[in-house]
Amino acid sequence: MEYRFAARIANLKPSAIREILKAPSDAETISFAAGNPAAETFPVKEMAQIAADIFATEATTALQYGVSDGYAPLRAAIAERQYNVWGIGKSVARGDKFNDECVIVSGGNQGIELAAKILCEEGESIICENPTFIGALNAFRSTVNANTVGVPLLDDGPDIEALEKALQDHPDAKLMYLIPTFQNPAGLTTSLEKRRAIYALALKYNVMILEDNPYGELRFAGEEIPTIKSMDTEGIVIYCSSLSKIMSAGIRIGFIIAPEAVTAKMVVAKQSEDVHTNLFFQMLCHKYMTQYDFQGHVEDIRNIYRHKCSLMLQELDKNLPKWLKFTRPEGGLFLWCTLPDSIDATAFVRACMAVKLRIVPGATFNCDPSAPSQCFRLNYSTPSDEQIIEGCKRLGDVARTFQP
Amino acid sequence: MEYRFAARIANLKPSAIREILKAPSDAETISFAAGNPAAETFPVKEMAQIAADIFATEATTALQYGVSDGYAPLRAAIAERQYNVWGIGKSVARGDKFNDECVIVSGGNQGIELAAKILCEEGESIICENPTFIGALNAFRSTVNANTVGVPLLDDGPDIEALEKALQDHPDAKLMYLIPTFQNPAGLTTSLEKRRAIYALALKYNVMILEDNPYGELRFAGEEIPTIKSMDTEGIVIYCSSLSKIMSAGIRIGFIIAPEAVTAKMVVAKQSEDVHTNLFFQMLCHKYMTQYDFQGHVEDIRNIYRHKCSLMLQELDKNLPKWLKFTRPEGGLFLWCTLPDSIDATAFVRACMAVKLRIVPGATFNCDPSAPSQCFRLNYSTPSDEQIIEGCKRLGDVARTFQP
Repeated sequence: MEYRFAARIANLKPSAIREILKAPSDAETISFAAGNPAAETFPVKEMAQIAADIFATEATTALQYGVSDGYAPLRAAIAERQYNVWGIGKSVARGDKFNDECVIVSGGNQGIELAAKILCEEGESIICENPTFIGALNAFRSTVNANTVGVPLLDDGPDIEALEKALQDHPDAKLMYLIPTFQNPAGLTTSLEKRRAIYALALKYNVMILEDNPYGELRFAGEEIPTIKSMDTEGIVIYCSSLSKIMSAGIRIGFIIAPEAVTAKMVVAKQSEDVHTNLFFQMLCHKYMTQYDFQGHVEDIRNIYRHKCSLMLQELDKNLPKWLKFTRPEGGLFLWCTLPDSIDATAFVRACMAVKLRIVPGATFNCDPSAPSQCFRLNYSTPSDEQIIEGCKRLGDVARTFQP
Repeated sequence: MEYRFAARIANLKPSAIREILKAPSDAETISFAAGNPAAETFPVKEMAQIAADIFATEATTALQYGVSDGYAPLRAAIAERQYNVWGIGKSVARGDKFNDECVIVSGGNQGIELAAKILCEEGESIICENPTFIGALNAFRSTVNANTVGVPLLDDGPDIEALEKALQDHPDAKLMYLIPTFQNPAGLTTSLEKRRAIYALALKYNVMILEDNPYGELRFAGEEIPTIKSMDTEGIVIYCSSLSKIMSAGIRIGFIIAPEAVTAKMVVAKQSEDVHTNLFFQMLCHKYMTQYDFQGHVEDIRNIYRHKCSLMLQELDKNLPKWLKFTRPEGGLFLWCTLPDSIDATAFVRACMAVKLRIVPGATFNCDPSAPSQCFRLNYSTPSDEQIIEGCKRLGDVARTFQP
């Protein structure tokens, strides 16, 4: 049987990272390739208590169909935290021009996918940082066969001149996708000045911003920088985040905060995908956020990642030759390494595989999947301290076999 | 702000049923409008035990990211039951031409949506029974802006002549969507002869069949009829079902059984939507299916619905005038009523609302949403026995105010 697949999907590959993670491994393998939250950040004991409580008192609600926009008490709890802590969410009642709504999605990735689905016609351009989150690139491709246009990411955020040129060159673009805080894969954070410039450009070119902020709660160094959404006076920013890094990744709960005209369309599209998000865990997360010390829990997670990131930076400083550059993140899960142009990056990644060290080649995150990259991504949230130390040693050993 | 939405979503409305369910109600309101499984069918006690066990022994696996194709032991347990009980799932190892794979999706609706996403270009035709499941129609529209072509549903399945004409008139169609068993909304079942004819037509016109079977386990009368998938010698049937009606609807777990070339594309597309389905409940369902009396549980559910359906049929026989026709289902959750042409169906539905009885107008399920309908759908799984009796009385009272 010759199957005839749609163009949007025919050439799409599974995420290279997820394929790397599926490759056979043994006890000696060390993976810096994952993007998993550390298992010790899941509040297991409290979740078990709440689950028992829901089964005992609210089981028939929790196991029955729910509404597509999400469990109302969870929506309210998230909206309240986002407004009080981060200044996110406008309301006419508070004197703003429009209302933002908070709706629940099945992980942040669904929020990204729905934004493209409701806004973009097939084949239209979507402006992205380059490199960027592979899950977003694949969502844009598999949903609307998007032309993903990359804007180079510099140390303090996207190249603003290149961004304006991309907007001029691609007048079909309706959407700009950005991860301004602890970017995946680069671990970089866009400066306040650049966030303002990006917002101004979006207004000027009548393009909406999809601000993805899955790591925003994970700052362990430096000063907070306001989100672009908190500057949104005109209702052009769709803000997307999730509970994956602060509750559990496997439960698949994310959220969107956007003008209600936009969330209404996203909810209609979501209804046609999965009807609603797992209701039991929506109820569980609501209880955890409102009846337990959620802020204390988030601070515990920050401490864990502060330690893990410091350890990795220390071990990289100790083991790597000077010519191997890497970013120094202030939060999030990743750092980003850059090889000199004279080194064959593919051979480097292969050499790491040979010593049972997994890293993700930078080309994985390119808007143009055929473009080369001199970079690779390292993750410090998943490996243990011992694995971080041993993995950095292996990385140093590999690096010393190359001559720049 | 004037938002520019994509054509596929701009005119799409939320499901009329879900809007009806959201309308204000009071203790006197009786709803025959839902499609919810009866709450007493959820195995709450056993699920609570298993959940406690998972939190105690496998929490970090259950709360971490999982693989996109689903939890392997659950996939295996479902595939085994589908093959042993229903003859579904081909395998080269068993002498078939191709391998079928079982993959997990976030409810049956996601399976339907993914099938359209991977196969259909924007605006292409999808052949459907008319009436059909509104969730599928909305998925086809919101994902690929499909031209949904309706084929009249007769008492023993789709009108085969009309089906062949639709295939001839719409050569762009790559997909035919059918609910052969206890159809939603009509409660009708396609005969074996027609299933064979449909399969032959799909082969002749090189169209794939999406066989949706969410209610297949819920037969409480009559003889089993083989699924179309069980006849699939060429790998052209995508079989879609779910655990919503036999475990819990709120957990959002469904599955697909289809040739591996097809499931591979569906998994890539699913990965871009929600990465994977809630892992905790995948593990929980696997343990329930393999360590408890799952078959006995399914038989208990059949007994519950046999009773509820019989009660509704008895009360309709007692209360309705002869001119109000209705189907007599052998399984599933719904029956379908037809008004004489001389009666204003919209006025009839409104009169039901006025006596606090909710029913779903038939036009909701039309492939052409602007086409009228003389029908309405009744559900017997959600209301209590008392509500079934009182609701049928109200329906009879309303009917007697109309003169055919």
